[in-house]
Amino acid sequence: MTERPLALTMGDPAGIGPDITLAAWTRRDADALPVFFLLGDPDVMAARADLLGLTVPIEIIEEPEEAIGCFSRALPIMPVAVGCKVEPGKPDEAAAAAIQGAIEQAVDLVRGGLASAVVTNPISKVVLTRAGFPHPGHTEYLAALGAEPGETLHPVMLLASKALKVVPITIHMPLQAVHDALTTELILKTIRITADGFRRYFEIEQPRLALTGLNPHAGEDGTLGDEEERIIAPAIEAAKAEGLDVSGPHPADTMFHASARETYDVALAMYHDQALIPIKTLAFETGVNATLGLPFVRTSPDHGTAFAIAGSGRASPASLIEALRLADTMSKRAAAKGAAA
Amino acid sequence: MTERPLALTMGDPAGIGPDITLAAWTRRDADALPVFFLLGDPDVMAARADLLGLTVPIEIIEEPEEAIGCFSRALPIMPVAVGCKVEPGKPDEAAAAAIQGAIEQAVDLVRGGLASAVVTNPISKVVLTRAGFPHPGHTEYLAALGAEPGETLHPVMLLASKALKVVPITIHMPLQAVHDALTTELILKTIRITADGFRRYFEIEQPRLALTGLNPHAGEDGTLGDEEERIIAPAIEAAKAEGLDVSGPHPADTMFHASARETYDVALAMYHDQALIPIKTLAFETGVNATLGLPFVRTSPDHGTAFAIAGSGRASPASLIEALRLADTMSKRAAAKGAAA
Repeated sequence: MTERPLALTMGDPAGIGPDITLAAWTRRDADALPVFFLLGDPDVMAARADLLGLTVPIEIIEEPEEAIGCFSRALPIMPVAVGCKVEPGKPDEAAAAAIQGAIEQAVDLVRGGLASAVVTNPISKVVLTRAGFPHPGHTEYLAALGAEPGETLHPVMLLASKALKVVPITIHMPLQAVHDALTTELILKTIRITADGFRRYFEIEQPRLALTGLNPHAGEDGTLGDEEERIIAPAIEAAKAEGLDVSGPHPADTMFHASARETYDVALAMYHDQALIPIKTLAFETGVNATLGLPFVRTSPDHGTAFAIAGSGRASPASLIEALRLADTMSKRAAAKGAAA
Repeated sequence: MTERPLALTMGDPAGIGPDITLAAWTRRDADALPVFFLLGDPDVMAARADLLGLTVPIEIIEEPEEAIGCFSRALPIMPVAVGCKVEPGKPDEAAAAAIQGAIEQAVDLVRGGLASAVVTNPISKVVLTRAGFPHPGHTEYLAALGAEPGETLHPVMLLASKALKVVPITIHMPLQAVHDALTTELILKTIRITADGFRRYFEIEQPRLALTGLNPHAGEDGTLGDEEERIIAPAIEAAKAEGLDVSGPHPADTMFHASARETYDVALAMYHDQALIPIKTLAFETGVNATLGLPFVRTSPDHGTAFAIAGSGRASPASLIEALRLADTMSKRAAAKGAAA
């Protein structure tokens, strides 16, 4: 198996993507980082390095494999020209085409076997939507890019840290909308994709999945809501019938302390804050977002564009570094599994 | 100021209340516990001590002040006869009258100036409801006992630990009901009682209150829900106009990591799991429940009756011990403040 580098997308160039990319590269030896190359604008990167006072030689590459040879001495960049002036903290929809182009090219390179996984820097949905971006978000865009003609993929967001791995079953919607969005079918589909992802990418043949309830105390036997019995339990029963190791619905509040976390490999939460509160409480800077259910490995740092601190030197590369590491591990495991099969 | 002991109620005698009371007393020296006495059944306690293999001399007292003299050598008990056979793990509604009697007596003793604060062992709402208990819960019962004729108190649940203090603004209701229950008036009332409680009991003259949003990312400027702008922000503005230090609504997921917690004295969350997930993740065994908005100090351990492990020796007294300590601190501060005023 030839070593292949990770494809890192530029994200919004007015955000902290360039900052954390540069900072991560400077830590390539100290943190023993896997080889990656950036799909981005070399001029933007050179200007940001200057602004931040970082010495980062840049090497333009034409093929991903060139990154292997030069990564130790320079940040390898496959050029994607932004085509407009980039000011840190001032997003411009004129950059939208380049932002999307980098993502599409990363997916193409990974699907073509030239790069090992897609790692994405943060984008701003608002900026892209203004420029006509038709997808609800980054992950949905990647799912559209990854789908075969006529196929609809169901991407599953996995938030991963050393202390906790957790999947929100519903994500970016008002709390009031969760009730209608949460169906037995959606829960079962998410369970299957999560279990498959853990077999494929985490070397766990029979992963233990633990589901939260929706209501306080998981409904307390129906006195505090009936979605547990009506919607969640049937999905758990169906998954068990398929041979999966699934438990719950458990009271969400007592699922995330240290000894509870030992009882499962991944928690599945019913809505955004139920998943994001525990992981950001336990692992604020080192949480990583991985997308399961795609035909390739994709990870990203677990934060946004942070326009307010772009170019200031205050952005931490910790989550991007963890995202690079996780993408490397996941793609190697998947490749080994593929080779063994 | 004379030293007064804490009044500890028996809770459901078939639960772990007797176990953790006995265990806490055995740690009176090691943990330098404040003096307390139990309102409970001496026979039940003696039998539980035997079952658990604990050597706990019991001293029957008639007045709270007798506890001061005997606490170091015996567990002081003001007798409340249960009047039925008590089997650990097998709750019996025949004990309901005694369970309630202990609570009423504790409140009377504290309001009469003979005990310093009420600390409650866990009760089972199901058991009491079957026996005709008309209150939605323990806290509401205490509020009814504490109210003057014609007055309705609004009790506020404060969950306290070293790492975090947090108040859920709505509590025991289905998640779907939170939307309708959450009003600007309720939020403002909870803000006022919380700020007053922190001045009175925590020696913080201008407490910093931080409110969560209801929706993911606190609604992300209205794209993920409008309750932040419509319901929460007006309460914050009104509280600020009254001179209170209140911030938010903040995205709930990024409010509970270590550096975020340094920016406030108490977080106010919109619903049960938003408050309980972070505190139980950070402080599973040592979290304490205190009730603000009552005319006396009341604390309790932050767990239930745990019938399944009653009499097994597996129940940890950690939360009860913290509840005793917090009640002692809160009542001393309130007394000092009263004396100074």
